[in-house]
This record gives sequence, structure tokens and C-alpha cells, in this order.
Amino acid sequence: MPLLVMKFGGTSVGSLDRIKRAAKRVGVEVAKGYDVIVIVSAMSGKTNELVGWVSETSPLFDAREYDAVVSSGENVTAGLMALTLQEMNVPARSWQGWQVPLKTTSAHSAARIEEIPTDNINAKFGEGMKVAVVAGFQGISPEGRITTLGRGGSDTTAVAFAAAFDAERCDIYTDVDGVYTTDPRISDKARKLDKIAFEEMLELASLGAKVLQTRSVELAMRFNVKLRVLSSFDEQTDTSGTLVCDEEEIVESNVVSGVAYSRDEAKMTLLSVADRPGIAAAIFGPLAEAGVNVDMIVQNISEDGRTDMTFSCPVDQVARAQNAMQAAKDAGEINYHDLDADTDVAKVSVVGIGMRSHAGVAAKMFKSLQDEGVNIKVIATSEIKISVLIDRKYMELAVQALHDAFELEKAA
Amino acid sequence: MPLLVMKFGGTSVGSLDRIKRAAKRVGVEVAKGYDVIVIVSAMSGKTNELVGWVSETSPLFDAREYDAVVSSGENVTAGLMALTLQEMNVPARSWQGWQVPLKTTSAHSAARIEEIPTDNINAKFGEGMKVAVVAGFQGISPEGRITTLGRGGSDTTAVAFAAAFDAERCDIYTDVDGVYTTDPRISDKARKLDKIAFEEMLELASLGAKVLQTRSVELAMRFNVKLRVLSSFDEQTDTSGTLVCDEEEIVESNVVSGVAYSRDEAKMTLLSVADRPGIAAAIFGPLAEAGVNVDMIVQNISEDGRTDMTFSCPVDQVARAQNAMQAAKDAGEINYHDLDADTDVAKVSVVGIGMRSHAGVAAKMFKSLQDEGVNIKVIATSEIKISVLIDRKYMELAVQALHDAFELEKAA
Repeated sequence: MPLLVMKFGGTSVGSLDRIKRAAKRVGVEVAKGYDVIVIVSAMSGKTNELVGWVSETSPLFDAREYDAVVSSGENVTAGLMALTLQEMNVPARSWQGWQVPLKTTSAHSAARIEEIPTDNINAKFGEGMKVAVVAGFQGISPEGRITTLGRGGSDTTAVAFAAAFDAERCDIYTDVDGVYTTDPRISDKARKLDKIAFEEMLELASLGAKVLQTRSVELAMRFNVKLRVLSSFDEQTDTSGTLVCDEEEIVESNVVSGVAYSRDEAKMTLLSVADRPGIAAAIFGPLAEAGVNVDMIVQNISEDGRTDMTFSCPVDQVARAQNAMQAAKDAGEINYHDLDADTDVAKVSVVGIGMRSHAGVAAKMFKSLQDEGVNIKVIATSEIKISVLIDRKYMELAVQALHDAFELEKAA
Repeated sequence: MPLLVMKFGGTSVGSLDRIKRAAKRVGVEVAKGYDVIVIVSAMSGKTNELVGWVSETSPLFDAREYDAVVSSGENVTAGLMALTLQEMNVPARSWQGWQVPLKTTSAHSAARIEEIPTDNINAKFGEGMKVAVVAGFQGISPEGRITTLGRGGSDTTAVAFAAAFDAERCDIYTDVDGVYTTDPRISDKARKLDKIAFEEMLELASLGAKVLQTRSVELAMRFNVKLRVLSSFDEQTDTSGTLVCDEEEIVESNVVSGVAYSRDEAKMTLLSVADRPGIAAAIFGPLAEAGVNVDMIVQNISEDGRTDMTFSCPVDQVARAQNAMQAAKDAGEINYHDLDADTDVAKVSVVGIGMRSHAGVAAKMFKSLQDEGVNIKVIATSEIKISVLIDRKYMELAVQALHDAFELEKAA
């Protein structure tokens, strides 16, 4: 029997009515002949309530108890979803993480999935069950305690089940109807993509398109799980949503697939740093230890044995970065003249696997920004992405200009 | 190390502040040198919310899914209690039913406890843990699914743990400060009992003193677990609350320990029933099948081969009883002239193990009611209890008169 994994996020199961609506979607797939594994999140708001209680009780909480408390929201939804399906005469039952058992590491609150045995659930499919409803986000440690996979972990649960059960597809139902060429709130020409490659999705996700948890996309890429993102609030057809898949399945594609942005960036420059071997480690080691998420790094040309080192980080980590640098300077680990912080910048990126085989994308991007009078402060590139830091006030303008320049409103 | 079991009901853990208050009580016992097993209910209102969702989703729900959903409330409290204790520097951890594992029958929603292995928890006590916090009300079936013990099942969980771990005592913290000679709302002379025998508590509980779940008292009696009922809202001393214990530990006792009542009773009389062998089974079999909880039964003297059969049941089961009797009559299984229903009666009972060795309790009871002009409609007796049905309007008067007659305001 072909098998589908369907995952419903918190807003998609936020009330009994919404659970019913989601169950009807599951029923449609069952009617087509699929066995289905449904992964559910907690009803929207529930996990935050539980997290709030834990934090209020114990600010530096024991993560094992945190997991025991916070995982309970998914258990409720799983049972209610199974009951709703049964009411529709669809044979269904619920599984909590430990019942599968979904085995994880002992890294409580951020556990990684180690193994998903398929025999328990497959045995029930063999007995005529059509839908296994599994509580997302949770597992069991080698010590037999409940673990959670970190926020958004239900996406990862879904992909891991799709890989373990060799599912035909993993459908992620959420409150948006797919992945767009850019944020529709910024450009009204934004177009929903029918397909996007895993690598592109990873770049878009980590750049701020918060549709799918990054880890779940990585996992899908590793096991080549076809992921579909679609809305639980629209009527669905077979071409609804966006399919996230291997690039080989994307026959025609634009050179650039999307324009991403990140609004609250800061550009930090260490002026006149001694340019010696190991200086980069001496700078970025302390920043990493201080929990600063450094993104772009640019080293200027060295003169007289000294150089300027520029990096970007989220704007709310500027103070942390300054403290870490000052401490390193005081400890004699680094030597610099000044630390300049520009907190009014944003990052804009164009992403596309087509870039690999097409020259001129960077040139087109820079020209387009120049035509709009947007000054580029920092440039960073990867194989399938070009990012620039610009003044924050030009961010919307830049996104719109790049969307136009690469004609993203047109399908390939 | 001596061990105590402490159980906190829903109102005693109804908020983070109340959990803190309960944790402080636990800390007092730990400071005295006890290892403690804490059994917690769900925060007040949570279980009802979950039950409501299940019933709305599926009126004739799958009890296995009901249990999976409804048990989640206790898991939340157990984790929060463990965290609260940790914040007080008391080494503690939580256990869910399946982690103990508390093994039950497969009778979902009304499972019975079969076994509580002690090795997991004792191993942790051996490692320096002082408090094991266990989610009450839940267990695991032989099939590995979550079961619940029925409403109020946390009391039963507590007593079962006390028996399994050979606890010195099982303290049940609730919102009343003990067991009274009668309902203080009816008689302002009601006196808190320091001690009460298991058998008396059973009679009082099933008669409407809703302090302890009947099953938990039965279990305590079977394993001779000393139970103490006390308030989580008062300051406590070693003599707080009421100790429910073996009668041999009660040196001095009143002949009568308490006056119980049940307000909403009905008296049903089958007139002119054929008096033949098997007639009682022919009547009460169908009533039991219809779910009618028959309490008192009185058969009148037979005349001319016919008799009247009187029984009592809760007033909201009268229609069900009438339907069951009519159906049995239609099926030719029984034959009666008429079914008379008196829905304005109440039951008043005096309870006391001292009755066994003291004659004259019944006579004193009847005399006292007669002096107040209260007509007795039905009488039923057991070894330690005498119950009467009377007109409901005299109920309070009867309770007060009996409390006075047996001088229950005075300690033995």
C-alpha cells in the first residue's frame, strides 16, 4: 500500500473544528488508497502556555522535566485527531513518541532522532488500520525519559517518519499555501513556486522564509524525501502548494528562484587589526563562545601588517559582540584600533540553483541595485546564493528591484 | 529510610502558587528524614476540559484514545512539581505511569492496578533522590497503551504506591481538613474525627462523604495502609486531619462515628409481584443491565402468592428503572400490578463499628426520628450501618437529631 506522511502544525489543529477539517484532508488521501501517518503539533498556544509555566516555576529548568511537561500538548492533539478520524469511520489510532518508540539522543529540549522502528505501526497497518496519528516533536532517550526535538520539531518528526517508512511524499500543512519567490507583503508580484530544490529551500529558510524548520529540509535532502508545503485552510488539488524536492526533478527552472531578506542585521567592523596567522580564529572563537551568530565575514586588503575585519550579526547581538571583543582585547588575545557598529543594515539575497551554470547573476544583481541608487556595503556569495548588506531603508526597494530584474513573476 | 506517600488533588495543585505550597509541605517531610513519593492530580479544571474535548469530538469515544488524551493533565503537574522541588534544592524527578511502569488491566477508563514494580524508583532513592513525583490516575496496559483508573483514581494510585513501597503512611491532601461526624453544612455541631476505621470510611464514602474514592479505601484496608486525609490549605501538625486506619488502632471509639446522608434518592415499589423462586433475579437482573444502581431492597410479606418489592435508586435513574421494568413485563419475565415511584425521599444513615458490640443503636435511632415526627419509609441494616429512607424535607432535621442523639459532638 502506498504511504503518505501528513503533518499539521499548531494553527491547523488549533480547535476541534480545525482538527475536523484536517481529518477530512486525511480522509481524502485514505480514499485514494493511501495508508497515512499523520504527525500533529500541539493546539496553537498550548506549547507556549506550558513553556511559560516551566519558565515561571524554574528559570534554569531541568531540561528533562521541561520535556516531560512541554510534550503533553502533542499527546492531546494526537488522541483527538484519532477520535475525529474514527468518527469519520477511518480506522485510526494514536501513538506517543515513546510508544513508537521514536528513539533520540539524550540532548533534552534539542534531541536528535536516532531511530524510528517501523514494525509496531506497520503491524497495525497490516491489521486494517488506515491512519497512524503520531504526536510530533517528542521521542524517548536511551534512559527512557521523554525528549523533545526543539521548537518546530514536528516538521523534523514528519520528515523522519517519511524517510523511515519510505513514504511517497511528506505533506506539511501550515497556514501559508507554499513557498514564494519573495515575501508577498513586500512585493505584490511575488509568485508561488510549484517546485523548489532542497538546497534553495535551505537558503531561503535560513534567510528568513519561516515556512519549514531548516533541520527538516536537511533531513529531507539527505533521505530524498519529497516534501510538499501547503495550506490547511484552502481547498487542495494535486498541484497545490510547493514541492520541495531534488533538483533533478525540476526540469525547467529560473536561474534565480527567490529573493530573500533579513531585516535586523548589524555590520561590525574591527578597524586596524594585526594581520597575523590565527587572527580570524582569535576573533571568531570568542564571538561563537559568546553566542553571537556571525553570518557574513569580509577581510579587507592588508596594509602595513594591519587589516580591517568586517562581519554581520543580528542587531540584537551587537552588545554581546562588543563585550566579547573588548574582553578579548583586554586579555591580550587580539589587538584592534576600534570596533565600528552599523546597526541600520539589512541583508538581501538572491537564491537559485541555476546560478551554478549561469554566469552574470552577480553582475545583474549589482547593476540592478546600482540603478536604484542602493549602495552595497558587504557582499558574500555561495554556490547558489548572493547576499548583500545594504542600508535598511532601501530593503523593500531592493527586494522589489531584484524580483523585477530576474523576472520572478514569470514561471520558467 | 522511612518512606511517605503524599497525594495532592486538583485544587491543591490548581496553580503554580498552589504547587509551590504543596512542594513546601513535601519539603517539611523530607527535612524530617523521609523519602517521599508524591502523587499528583491534574490542575483543577484541566481534566474536565480534556474530557469535554473528547466527548465533543466523539460522543461514543474509543476509551483507549480517551485515556491517551485525558491522562496528559497529570503529566504536566508531575513535571511542574518536580521542577518546583528542584528549585527548593530538593532532589526530585517526575515519573509518568508508563515509566514506573504502573501496570494495569486493559479496562480503559476504569483500569485496575495489577503491579507496581519498585526497582526503578528505589534505584533513584539509592542515588540520592529524595522525592519521586508520579502522575496519578494513569498506568499502562499489557498492550503498551495508556490506561486511566477512572475519576478520582489518583487516590487509588497513592494507596497502591503506599502498599507497594511499604510506606509508613499515605497522606491525602485535599480541600477539606478531614472526615467529619456529619456534613458541617447541615449540623454546626459536626466534629472532625481524629481517627476512623476503614470499614466506617467505606460506609461514609459510599453514602456521600466525597473525601476519598471508595476504591482507595478498599485498597488501603486490604493492604493495611494508614491513610491520612488533611487539608493542603491549613498549617499542619502531626495530629492534623483524620487518620483512616485499622479499627484495632482506634482504642476508644464512639458507638456511632458519623451520620451520613444522600439527598437525591427515589423509592420504587413494584406492587403485587408474583412471589416465586427467582423473582428477585428476574427484577434486579434487568435493572443492573440498564445501569440502575439499586441500593436498598425490601420485600414485603407475601399474601396469596403475591408480594410488594421495594427498592431505592438515585432519583435520576427512575426513568431508566421504569423502562427496564416495563420491558421485562412486556417480555413476560415478570408480572406486577403497578410500579410506584416516590421521588421525594432521602437516605440518612448512622455508621459505626461500635454497633457490632452495642445493642440498641437501631432502637435509639428510630426513637429519635419518631420524637421529631419523621416517618421512616424503608429500613436497611448492615453490621456497622443503619440506613432509613425518609421524606426529603426532613433530611436536615433527621441528620441533626441523630447527631444530637448519639452525642457525636463529644469525642469518645
